[in-house]
Amino acid sequence: MTSVITVVKEFGKQVDDFLFGMLGLGVSDEFLEIVRHQVAAGGKRLRPALTILSCEAVGGESMSAIPAAAAIELVHNYTLIFDDIIDRSDLRRGSPTVRAKYGDVMAILAGMHYREAIFEATRRSHKSRRIENVLSVALRRIIEGERLDVLFEQAGRESEYVRKIMRKSVSEKDYFEMVGAKTAVLFEAACKVGGIVGNGTPSQVDALSKFGWNCGVAFQIRDDILDIVGDTGELGKEAGKDIREHKLGNLALLYSFEELPDKDKEKLTVILRSPHVSGSNVGEGIEIILSTNAVERAYNKSKSFVETAKSSIHQIPSSEAKRMLLSLADFIAERKF
Amino acid sequence: MTSVITVVKEFGKQVDDFLFGMLGLGVSDEFLEIVRHQVAAGGKRLRPALTILSCEAVGGESMSAIPAAAAIELVHNYTLIFDDIIDRSDLRRGSPTVRAKYGDVMAILAGMHYREAIFEATRRSHKSRRIENVLSVALRRIIEGERLDVLFEQAGRESEYVRKIMRKSVSEKDYFEMVGAKTAVLFEAACKVGGIVGNGTPSQVDALSKFGWNCGVAFQIRDDILDIVGDTGELGKEAGKDIREHKLGNLALLYSFEELPDKDKEKLTVILRSPHVSGSNVGEGIEIILSTNAVERAYNKSKSFVETAKSSIHQIPSSEAKRMLLSLADFIAERKF
Repeated sequence: MTSVITVVKEFGKQVDDFLFGMLGLGVSDEFLEIVRHQVAAGGKRLRPALTILSCEAVGGESMSAIPAAAAIELVHNYTLIFDDIIDRSDLRRGSPTVRAKYGDVMAILAGMHYREAIFEATRRSHKSRRIENVLSVALRRIIEGERLDVLFEQAGRESEYVRKIMRKSVSEKDYFEMVGAKTAVLFEAACKVGGIVGNGTPSQVDALSKFGWNCGVAFQIRDDILDIVGDTGELGKEAGKDIREHKLGNLALLYSFEELPDKDKEKLTVILRSPHVSGSNVGEGIEIILSTNAVERAYNKSKSFVETAKSSIHQIPSSEAKRMLLSLADFIAERKF
Repeated sequence: MTSVITVVKEFGKQVDDFLFGMLGLGVSDEFLEIVRHQVAAGGKRLRPALTILSCEAVGGESMSAIPAAAAIELVHNYTLIFDDIIDRSDLRRGSPTVRAKYGDVMAILAGMHYREAIFEATRRSHKSRRIENVLSVALRRIIEGERLDVLFEQAGRESEYVRKIMRKSVSEKDYFEMVGAKTAVLFEAACKVGGIVGNGTPSQVDALSKFGWNCGVAFQIRDDILDIVGDTGELGKEAGKDIREHKLGNLALLYSFEELPDKDKEKLTVILRSPHVSGSNVGEGIEIILSTNAVERAYNKSKSFVETAKSSIHQIPSSEAKRMLLSLADFIAERKF
C-alpha cells in the first residue's frame, strides 16, 4: 500500500514541471531567479495533490488535473509571497523568503507576476472559465481572511488606520470566520477544481468542496498548534511566530484565554501587546498557553473538522484516490511539519 | 466641436460606474472604503477613453467597450497602488495614496483585490478570452518595466540584491526599453482591446496598437518633462519626484547628461546618489537640467512619437472617433497635468 505522502510527492513533481513552465512565461532571465525562488524553496504540495486526487475520485484522469493543480499551488505561493511581506517574515520552509533574499520591492513584483502565471495555468486547464472563476472568488476571500488576520494582531502595525480598527478581542466565531477565508477557502477550491476537471456531478463537486473546506480548517488549527509546540528545525520556520507577531488569531491561544486565571491572562495580553516581543517573552507566552488544556482542545477541534471532512464524501464511490483523500485528511491533523 | 477632454470626462463617468461595481464584488464594507479610494481620488481616465474611441473608430458601439475600458483603467490603478508602495509615495492626484492613508499592508491587500476586479471586468467583456490574454501579457511587461525603473535608481534601496544589480548608467536604449514596458504597453493594450471589442480587422487592431504604444511613450516623456518643469499644485503630485527618488530613468535628465560640463554632470550624479535628497538638492538638480536644452529635446522626441502614432492609423477611415483619437494624441504631448 503506497503511503499518501509518497503519492503527494510524486504528484508534486509533475505539478512542479508544469508550474515552472507557467512562471517562466514572459519573464527576463534576471527576474526568473527571483520568481522561481518561492516554489523552488519547497513546500509540501498538499493542495495540488488534493486537486488531482479529487479529480481521480470522480473518475477523471490525473493528467487532466495538472494545470488546475498547478494553478492552485501558484495561488498558494502568490499569497505566501505577499503574506511574508505583510508579516515581515524572513524564513519559510527552512529557506529565506523572497523578501528576505531579494527585498520587498522585488517580492512585490514577483507576487504580481505569480498572479499572471495563475492565469496562464488556468487557461490551459479543462473547463478553464469555471476554474478561473473559482480561483478568483477564492482569492478575494483569501485577501479578506488575511485582512482579518492582520486586524486580529494586538500590536506591531505602524499604520494609524490599522491601529484604529484593529480588534481588541477575538471570539471563536471571529477566528473561524478568519481561517475559513484565509486558509480553508483554498483547500475548498483545490478539491472543487479537481472535481470539476474530473467531470464530477454537481453533488460530487459539492461534496469534495465541503471535504476540502473542512480539511483546510483542520490544517490551519494544526498550524496554530505547531506554532505553539513545534520546533523551528522541523517546522522550517520560527516557532512561536504567532506570539512574536502579536497574533490573537491562533486557536490554541484563544482557548487558553478561556481557562487561564486573570493574572496569566493579563500576562499573555501584555506580551501580545508589547511593541517588541523578545525571545524570552515568546517562551513565557508558550509556557502560559501550555499550562492549560488549550492545545488538546484545539487538537480535538481539528479532529472534528477532519471527521466532518471525511463524512462529507461518503457518497463518492470507493477507489484508491478516495482512500488517499481520506488518509490525507488524517495526515493533516497529525502532521509534525 | 466637442473638445476631446469633455469627451474623455463623459466616457470616464460611464466607465467609473461599471468599474466601481467590479471593485465592490466580494468585498466587506470595511475594506470597500480602501478599495474605492484609489480610483475615487481621481485620474484623467485617458486610457479607457482610448479604448472606447478605438472601438468606435473601427465601427463598434461605445457601450460595448465599457467592460474592456474599465478593465484597462483597473489595470492602471492596480499597478499604481503597488508603484506607490514601491516608491513610498504619499501623494497622487492631489490626494493621499492608498498606502499613505491606510498603510502599506492594506494597500497590498487592496492591490491584490484590484487584480480580481480586472478579471471580473474582462469576463463581462465582448471577446473576453482574448481581452484577458492581452491584459495578462501586458501586465507581465508592466511588471518588468517597473523592475527596470527601480534598477535605474541610483540610491535609496536597502535591499542588498537590488544594490548589487542596479544599473550604474542608463542609455537612451535602456530608457526606451523600460518606458516601452512600464507605460507604453498599457496604452497599446488600451487601443488594442478597443479595436478587438469593436470587431476591427486584424490590420486595424495592429494599427491601433501601434497608435497606442507610441502615444504611451509620448505620455511618459511628457511625464518626465512635467516632473522637471511642473509645479506640485497643478501636477497633484510632488514636482522633482524623480530626482528625489534617485531615478535615472527620466528622458530630460538623461538628455541633460549628454550636454552638461563634467562639473555639473558630477554634481547631478552626486545628488541622485545621495542617500537622502533634500528639497534644495532637488531644486539644484532641476536647475542643472534646465541649464541645458534637454527639456526641449525631450519635448521634440515626444512630438515625434505623437507623429508616428498619428500616422499609424492613416488606414482607419475618417470618423468623429478617429478625429478624437488624433487630438488625444496631440493633447498627450502638450498636457500640463
